[in-house]
Amino acid sequence: MNYKIKSRIWIEADGDILLGEGRVALLKAIESTGSLSKAAKSLKMSYKKAWSLVDKMNKRSEFPITSATIGGKGGGGVQLTAYGKTLICTFETINENCWNFLDGQMKESKFQ
Amino acid sequence: MNYKIKSRIWIEADGDILLGEGRVALLKAIESTGSLSKAAKSLKMSYKKAWSLVDKMNKRSEFPITSATIGGKGGGGVQLTAYGKTLICTFETINENCWNFLDGQMKESKFQ
Repeated sequence: MNYKIKSRIWIEADGDILLGEGRVALLKAIESTGSLSKAAKSLKMSYKKAWSLVDKMNKRSEFPITSATIGGKGGGGVQLTAYGKTLICTFETINENCWNFLDGQMKESKFQ
Repeated sequence: MNYKIKSRIWIEADGDILLGEGRVALLKAIESTGSLSKAAKSLKMSYKKAWSLVDKMNKRSEFPITSATIGGKGGGGVQLTAYGKTLICTFETINENCWNFLDGQMKESKFQ
């Protein structure tokens, strides 16, 4: 029998969810597509749902996570702020550190 | 804005969920009541659901987690094996260690 420990982390701001794995995936899709509608589509999420999630994140975070871009080919889009990028990076780093920490904990236990 | 990191852990056995917070709560209720039906009732869970969860846990774990008790006042009941008790204890210890680890990670980040 092969036991494996798993985890899910999320960050709350004043008790409300700010960031979790799903939201990070949405932000990364925004970063790579530069468009909320393309990002939503790539995750098979409705535009309305994606818009609502981004709106919640921006309202709950200390500084804006996304900013609108104006004009250019194909009209305006959306991009991540430096703050948003740092937040994602921190989330992913802590998430990976957490997995490694838990693997170590299981190895030390009787149930490795 | 007060950021707080949260986590949920679970243990899988060969890819199937063996133990998570809900199952630990059920096992602890079994331990304190000595009865599957009382344990289920205390968690507002159907007897069928509780039975199915315990059955899955016993089948997926390396050794049985619960054992039946026979006879005595009020008929037979169910109790945790030593293995089951150690598994719960390990789960809860790792869970608490994980919370502390994550709090430390957030403090080290820019988002404490």
